[in-house]
Amino acid sequence: MIGDFTYNTPTTLVFGKGVVKGLPEALARYGKTVLLTYGGGSIKKMGLYDEVMRLLRGFKVVELSGIEPNPKYDPSVVTGARLCKENNVDVILAVGGGSVLDCSKAIAACAMYDGEGWDLISGKVKATAALPILDVLTLAATGSEYDCGCVISNTALSDKRGYVDPLLYPAVSFLDPTYTFSVSPWQTACGTADAINHVLEQFFSRPTSTFNDGIMIAAIRSLMDNVLVALKEPTNYEARSELMYVCSWGCNGILANGSGYSGWPMHSIEHALSAYFDITHGAGLAIITPRWMREILSDRTMERFVTLGRSLFGFDASLPDAEMAEKVINAFYSFFESTGIPMHLAPLGVTADKIEEMADHILAYDDTSQDWAYVPLDKPALIRILKASM
Amino acid sequence: MIGDFTYNTPTTLVFGKGVVKGLPEALARYGKTVLLTYGGGSIKKMGLYDEVMRLLRGFKVVELSGIEPNPKYDPSVVTGARLCKENNVDVILAVGGGSVLDCSKAIAACAMYDGEGWDLISGKVKATAALPILDVLTLAATGSEYDCGCVISNTALSDKRGYVDPLLYPAVSFLDPTYTFSVSPWQTACGTADAINHVLEQFFSRPTSTFNDGIMIAAIRSLMDNVLVALKEPTNYEARSELMYVCSWGCNGILANGSGYSGWPMHSIEHALSAYFDITHGAGLAIITPRWMREILSDRTMERFVTLGRSLFGFDASLPDAEMAEKVINAFYSFFESTGIPMHLAPLGVTADKIEEMADHILAYDDTSQDWAYVPLDKPALIRILKASM
Repeated sequence: MIGDFTYNTPTTLVFGKGVVKGLPEALARYGKTVLLTYGGGSIKKMGLYDEVMRLLRGFKVVELSGIEPNPKYDPSVVTGARLCKENNVDVILAVGGGSVLDCSKAIAACAMYDGEGWDLISGKVKATAALPILDVLTLAATGSEYDCGCVISNTALSDKRGYVDPLLYPAVSFLDPTYTFSVSPWQTACGTADAINHVLEQFFSRPTSTFNDGIMIAAIRSLMDNVLVALKEPTNYEARSELMYVCSWGCNGILANGSGYSGWPMHSIEHALSAYFDITHGAGLAIITPRWMREILSDRTMERFVTLGRSLFGFDASLPDAEMAEKVINAFYSFFESTGIPMHLAPLGVTADKIEEMADHILAYDDTSQDWAYVPLDKPALIRILKASM
Repeated sequence: MIGDFTYNTPTTLVFGKGVVKGLPEALARYGKTVLLTYGGGSIKKMGLYDEVMRLLRGFKVVELSGIEPNPKYDPSVVTGARLCKENNVDVILAVGGGSVLDCSKAIAACAMYDGEGWDLISGKVKATAALPILDVLTLAATGSEYDCGCVISNTALSDKRGYVDPLLYPAVSFLDPTYTFSVSPWQTACGTADAINHVLEQFFSRPTSTFNDGIMIAAIRSLMDNVLVALKEPTNYEARSELMYVCSWGCNGILANGSGYSGWPMHSIEHALSAYFDITHGAGLAIITPRWMREILSDRTMERFVTLGRSLFGFDASLPDAEMAEKVINAFYSFFESTGIPMHLAPLGVTADKIEEMADHILAYDDTSQDWAYVPLDKPALIRILKASM
């Protein structure tokens, strides 16, 4: 059964080795003054910064560098928006991973807004315009290159918000898998865990259909198989290309058109974790996943676990349901562990004394407890998940 | 491995029961004068014509009715383009199935062109503009509502051409599965056969990836399962909704992003068949499918058959490859037969005396014989496939 939906993703994906050479032609459609956004030194080390600057000859380039993981409203978004206004920037070019893209999306909206940008990000005010965004992706993970959302942290408020608006779709995303060859094993594992979790958030939803189930299981299977290859052989194009493409499908809803929206509970929990402890997003998600699964396992949700057991993992279809579900939960735990993610929060610096405060934070800002959630989570449930994850 | 590609589908899909009520707001973005295109009386019989006309109060409506299956350049496209020019039409609203949509796309381009429209359709001249198209779909089949192609027959030239241009993407497609409740068993079977064939044309391609294979197998599985339900229970919303959605994915390339283009040989053959004998497109494809498969089966192509056997049909993985392939080919034959399609061309009125002429026609206009085809087909091969299909 395909439930009601409206779907449109206007972004053009340009995929393959060397596609970045199409950048000048694509950018020129939007203007001559470019805000170039990037993170630390990695794009310089890999030679991409120099390549992009060569391609941008003929454009006026304003730079915003140093965008942090879990990008911050202040200074990154605030500075970027100011640079756009001061320089009459026509178009933003983001070069990097999900954090650089997310930050650039927030900048794109804030640059066209006269008030305090956080009002847009926090949903108090609806944006009416945003600068166009193009991007060159260097990390397979968040899917930000193919969706209209971003996640921005506000350190002053200990807050981390998902901000979604169709104005924020990138116009063109350039995906060259060779740019991910130098991604570290840790970031490769965490990026893939993030993408797997995007699929799972949508898999645990209603209604279900043969088609969506099949797509989502193909996505998880591909991510699991290919990350293990990429961890062993970082320059394996086959594996890196499949990871990059599948990750792009994570968050624009295409994986679950017609499955309805039933919340993204694991992301809600993780956003609190990384707002309080600045841990790597994908690692947090990997650790939460089996604990959340165990919390929500019931007769009502059993069918989802059985489908994963049979179709994703190929477990014996004659196993009793409860046993199958147990094997599925353990299989995710073992898989993430095999990619090098420590499956406990304490080693990442999370302390138990903040658990109750984080649970309150999740309930205050997010949608895990709502009636329409796949399984509504109250405060004791959130505390159980967080404690079990320690 | 994901090969190089560029992907963009700008169409908005609006899916669900009752979505047609959004039509006036969507149309108003494009203007006040609408060319309403439709086929025979079926949209009147089901009450959809009256509903659309009520929604179009406030617009100036010019009508083009009687668009035929396998839509004809003359009179349908020629007349539609003339009506657009004479009435300064702003936007085309197609209400119907793939034929009405295809015809409307050709009209949209020809209406903005001063010369002979067939020059655009036959590829002699490249269009520079097209009118915007919206549609209300009444048949799950061709995927025309989500792609930028159309197929137009030119009776005078005994020609049937695929015409593809990004200008031809519908702006908004309204998909209400209840409009397909009254589709006859024959059209339901043939529409599904068409969609299954769209997937197969892309499945037999290079390179392959875990992800694309999984999506395509999920699509075929969903189509096979749900058409059998819809044939028994024509008003089963679960089945009709899944058929309608999956069919939409057929032809815009998303099923095979990164798999490269290796030709659509079965479509090339079928286009000749229906140009000469005006048979139902999906029926022709269903009949050709197992014969084409047997023709191209070899050591090189064996892996595709084995993947279908294991993942689509769940056949015993320990079977010898050749036996598995044989079972796959027979399974497609039996499946199409079970949906009510006679699995021979002769009962549809095709006569053997035209086989050689059709083979020449295919070679003259299409791409089945090219080196880059998945398996290049020469004249003897085409004749073998057609003869075996009789």
